[in-house]
Amino acid sequence: MAVATQSLEELCINSIRFLAIDAVEKAKSGHPGLPMGAAPMAFVLWDRFLRFNPKNPKWFNRDRFVLSAGHGSMLQYALLYLAGFDSVSIEDIKQFRQWESKTPGHPENFMTAGVEVTTGPLGQGIANGVGLAIAEAHLAAKYNKPDANIVDHYTYVILGDGCNMEGISGEACSFAGHLGLGKLIALYDDNHISIDGSTDVAFTEDVSKRFEAYGWHVQHVKEGNTDLGAIADAIEAAKAVTDKPSFIKVTTTIGYGSPNKANTAGVHGAALGGDEVALTRKNLGWEYEPFVIPQDVLDHTRKAVERGAGYEDQWNKAFADYKAKYPQEAAEFERYVTSKLPDGWDKVLPTYTAEDKALPTRKHSETCLNKLAAVLPELIGGSADLTHSNLTEIKGKGDFQKGQYQNPNIHFGVREHGMGAICNGIALHGSGLIPYGATFLIFTDYMRAAIRLSALSQAGVIWVMTHDSIGQGEDGPTHQPIETLASLRAIPNLTVIRPADGTETSGAYKVAIERAKQNAPTLLAFTRQNVPNLAGTSIEGVTKGGYTVVDSDGTPELIIIATGSEVNLAVTAAEKLTAEGKKVRVVSLPAWDLFEAQDAAYKESVLPKAVTKRLAVEAGSSFGWHKYVGTEGDIVSIDRFGASAPGGVCLEKFGFSVDNVLAKAKQLLG
Amino acid sequence: MAVATQSLEELCINSIRFLAIDAVEKAKSGHPGLPMGAAPMAFVLWDRFLRFNPKNPKWFNRDRFVLSAGHGSMLQYALLYLAGFDSVSIEDIKQFRQWESKTPGHPENFMTAGVEVTTGPLGQGIANGVGLAIAEAHLAAKYNKPDANIVDHYTYVILGDGCNMEGISGEACSFAGHLGLGKLIALYDDNHISIDGSTDVAFTEDVSKRFEAYGWHVQHVKEGNTDLGAIADAIEAAKAVTDKPSFIKVTTTIGYGSPNKANTAGVHGAALGGDEVALTRKNLGWEYEPFVIPQDVLDHTRKAVERGAGYEDQWNKAFADYKAKYPQEAAEFERYVTSKLPDGWDKVLPTYTAEDKALPTRKHSETCLNKLAAVLPELIGGSADLTHSNLTEIKGKGDFQKGQYQNPNIHFGVREHGMGAICNGIALHGSGLIPYGATFLIFTDYMRAAIRLSALSQAGVIWVMTHDSIGQGEDGPTHQPIETLASLRAIPNLTVIRPADGTETSGAYKVAIERAKQNAPTLLAFTRQNVPNLAGTSIEGVTKGGYTVVDSDGTPELIIIATGSEVNLAVTAAEKLTAEGKKVRVVSLPAWDLFEAQDAAYKESVLPKAVTKRLAVEAGSSFGWHKYVGTEGDIVSIDRFGASAPGGVCLEKFGFSVDNVLAKAKQLLG
Repeated sequence: MAVATQSLEELCINSIRFLAIDAVEKAKSGHPGLPMGAAPMAFVLWDRFLRFNPKNPKWFNRDRFVLSAGHGSMLQYALLYLAGFDSVSIEDIKQFRQWESKTPGHPENFMTAGVEVTTGPLGQGIANGVGLAIAEAHLAAKYNKPDANIVDHYTYVILGDGCNMEGISGEACSFAGHLGLGKLIALYDDNHISIDGSTDVAFTEDVSKRFEAYGWHVQHVKEGNTDLGAIADAIEAAKAVTDKPSFIKVTTTIGYGSPNKANTAGVHGAALGGDEVALTRKNLGWEYEPFVIPQDVLDHTRKAVERGAGYEDQWNKAFADYKAKYPQEAAEFERYVTSKLPDGWDKVLPTYTAEDKALPTRKHSETCLNKLAAVLPELIGGSADLTHSNLTEIKGKGDFQKGQYQNPNIHFGVREHGMGAICNGIALHGSGLIPYGATFLIFTDYMRAAIRLSALSQAGVIWVMTHDSIGQGEDGPTHQPIETLASLRAIPNLTVIRPADGTETSGAYKVAIERAKQNAPTLLAFTRQNVPNLAGTSIEGVTKGGYTVVDSDGTPELIIIATGSEVNLAVTAAEKLTAEGKKVRVVSLPAWDLFEAQDAAYKESVLPKAVTKRLAVEAGSSFGWHKYVGTEGDIVSIDRFGASAPGGVCLEKFGFSVDNVLAKAKQLLG
Repeated sequence: MAVATQSLEELCINSIRFLAIDAVEKAKSGHPGLPMGAAPMAFVLWDRFLRFNPKNPKWFNRDRFVLSAGHGSMLQYALLYLAGFDSVSIEDIKQFRQWESKTPGHPENFMTAGVEVTTGPLGQGIANGVGLAIAEAHLAAKYNKPDANIVDHYTYVILGDGCNMEGISGEACSFAGHLGLGKLIALYDDNHISIDGSTDVAFTEDVSKRFEAYGWHVQHVKEGNTDLGAIADAIEAAKAVTDKPSFIKVTTTIGYGSPNKANTAGVHGAALGGDEVALTRKNLGWEYEPFVIPQDVLDHTRKAVERGAGYEDQWNKAFADYKAKYPQEAAEFERYVTSKLPDGWDKVLPTYTAEDKALPTRKHSETCLNKLAAVLPELIGGSADLTHSNLTEIKGKGDFQKGQYQNPNIHFGVREHGMGAICNGIALHGSGLIPYGATFLIFTDYMRAAIRLSALSQAGVIWVMTHDSIGQGEDGPTHQPIETLASLRAIPNLTVIRPADGTETSGAYKVAIERAKQNAPTLLAFTRQNVPNLAGTSIEGVTKGGYTVVDSDGTPELIIIATGSEVNLAVTAAEKLTAEGKKVRVVSLPAWDLFEAQDAAYKESVLPKAVTKRLAVEAGSSFGWHKYVGTEGDIVSIDRFGASAPGGVCLEKFGFSVDNVLAKAKQLLG
């Protein structure tokens, strides 16, 4: 139909569609199909429901919107542009998928204001949404008062078939149902098409029934292409259900409007092509040139600017009232949202002497977490069903459960991947909460995609990983990390810390908390087994990533470099060598990337280039260690899978004994 | 009740319970709770249904049994011992969880005959079970005749709450429902307890309803502790449903029989303790010393030996008849199950000259897969919804779907982790099938736990990973591998190959196929973008992991080491340097571990120690490369996340250009 006969709403929806069509066409790359099909539900949501302030995308009490089907990024960029966000101009849209543009291939929160989380890897966004809703519920339970709702927003997610096929979405949505997160509303773009074609080839389950089984409130909009009223009614109904998350299946046509490509996989992930774009223009009655949006449309959609300013004003007033009535709560809340740490917070971190009792570093981790929680109530998290192995409970604080959202201890269930993305969502809520997620180190393999996204999307999460070596023992090779540390150290922007004892554990938490407040994740690796406290360790040393723990006078003949439970072995071996008249230094290297970030002089002072006799000792893979031991050094490591036996036996059998370290050291010394 | 009043079946079930209780008690480590609760269902299954031959655990047509809740390993060891498997003696049970015993902490197929797959990481086993059932369905469809069912067995899985919480089980079970795998029967040990306590703290969904939504046939045995008849009836009913997989929820009590610990998390993963063991003995009327099993029980359970010999005899006769009637099919089947490759199979692998057209290595991969499929019909696999990006379709062969199980092309859906474990299951069916699973290289992060298990459990899978660098382009950093190659190279027993061109792609497949037949997995990394064919590449070179592609006369001054799409850059840079009178060698290093496995002389011939000026070039992380470039070398790499832009732009911006390689080389040359 011609423009003249289209309603304003139809024009708005077609504006979204053609921004997507034309941007993908110009880039010769991208995914037009989802924006074309999901434009009606997205428009209704943004136009009638979503509360946000385009001129202050970080306004605290905004509704959160997540495009879990991140490949449809042009949908989000079109919405941001139409709503008047400064982050996405029409010029930015013309730069879709180009170097350093604000409109990258998938939504990236660190590139584009108004994008809450980074999506694209399927299923992550809906799980982030669960995290955002948890953050909201937690803060609301903590700070709202009978006469003041300062935390009060919805989390809306659009997800597709791909998201629903991924296990991570099942984990997170099962958990959201358990928690009864009533302010989480997911719109499922049910378009029956994925990259391989019809979902008939691989995905014929009853998705709605599955969400009912999870405990969600489930609705179906049968005509999602055109029935805007039904979409709006469903969202209203979803908001009315306050004790369950809501799942709205919206049946749509992928590539709606394209005469030859609608409802095919061809429109999923490729430009329509010039001819089909022209036919689609004709079919949808769209008379505008690429990147031209009718003024009527902009006049309407940009009302969001005034509306948003009003929302924020209203909230600011409400918060001022709150502050007057509840100064203490308001002060804490303000500290949270400005990502500040209270003065002297790190004074609670204990240090130890060699006389203190040998303990597992996971036990020291428990001490740190509990001492920190007393001064940093923004800590919230838990374990994937290993609470009493990971030792991550904040004691006396209660469990985060339906009706108990004020409590910080989350039982994620055996859902590592979901936990990961939920923690990312909590961090990216931007409210100063510091989420932590825990499991055995080996099971980072189950949640690696989420850990990577924490590093990429600047989510200040603390990953608490215990049972960090073959010292794990009897559970055997399925539970013993070998290559795990190497594989995590290789992730950009992720600081991996493997502390040697109690004092280094405190150092690890000092780094992790500071990084969290700077929107950067840290992964901590702790032992299952006891380790002695060492005389030479320090918090400051950990913050530098690597430092000398034990040294002889003058230039050493040999440097032994170790991490975690093996630093103790290195120190004992060094003592014996020193007694034999050798000059030996022991370097603890708990955090490789922090060490690399030090200046050259410091690095040279710790690892002088001239000292080429170097021995690394770590109960894990040798992979990566040649950077520190060079071509003339040696490595006590384990480059095969582990074995089921008591932890001490495993360590001994695989060469993590003083005798073996001594023997290797002597070989190097010649 | 006293032994005298117990039925033989009760005695058998208590035998399982006390083998588990006493083995865990002796080891002071392990999980008694599951075996105590699941013993009735396991006994009924093994006693009345499961067809196997204890004296030939690898008998082809056996029913497959998977303990997906692998922490309950003592259940499986008890069953193997009672049934008369030689792999598990009473002495072996006394060695539970000890160094190199046949009874490790979790079931390991490579340690213990009778264990089909390695479980412990939760959810893997049920997904392996889907793979086992796919293998059975595929071979049955291919080889059975109206007058001969030579492939005809069930796959039974026992899984617990933990397995059901993991996303991987959801992915695999949704897919099993889609496929209608009627001979897959899962028994869910519904004991309401996980490590953190009651499942009420994290897992309150309606699991049965979820499985109904997946399209499974669902039943519930309400009294799984004692109602053996109901268990048997449910299994019978499950077998009668031939067009759907069956899910039997069996409600049990964890730690059944322990007066103080039953139905608590305390019995999940720790020894009962001497006092409670004594009380449990009294409570269950068990009068026997630890590790003593009543002769009546053994007389009964060891009937499995005779029964099993009968099954196998019968099958051998049937197969002899089959062979007489269908010699060609029988020959192929026999070749499969003996893991033999047909003579000259690798002659189909093409080689290329520098004049051949530049193509993406993923396109060469497609060629190899299709040429190989013509001579190796045991190839079966596909992609996680990226068939036409990964280029993994075997053309003209049809899709593996319900009613079309004879076809090799599997559409896994967007279920990478499920795909991984399903491929492992197909490989561990032990019938010579070569499964392959494909996605983008970055999404190995979603399936890493399954890839690791392929390496640990000796599953001969080919992992086909495309879009292997920032050359991926516009999709941006969420889709661009950086640290991915490093993280995979670090996994023991996994050969990672990144071929440079068409010829090296053939070499990669030669290695992968041979390794698959030796029960070892290989991961192949292919480009999205075109790469030229190089004059110096060879299949043989790839089989050695690293080799000289271009060389100057005499000892080189500089060695440039590269992989994949960067070998071409290295060659071009070397040509320019040679033209300037420098002596430069280019080494292609597509497979690090294969190179490391060569003898010292060969390695020295390729990378002479004396040549310390070395430059590595790889469009990925530098992590690990110092092993080859030493302390004096340099690396052209990318140690940050990628960016959204056309692939060529990304490569250029991040320094993967001839100019930059030349500049770095000249810096080294001084």
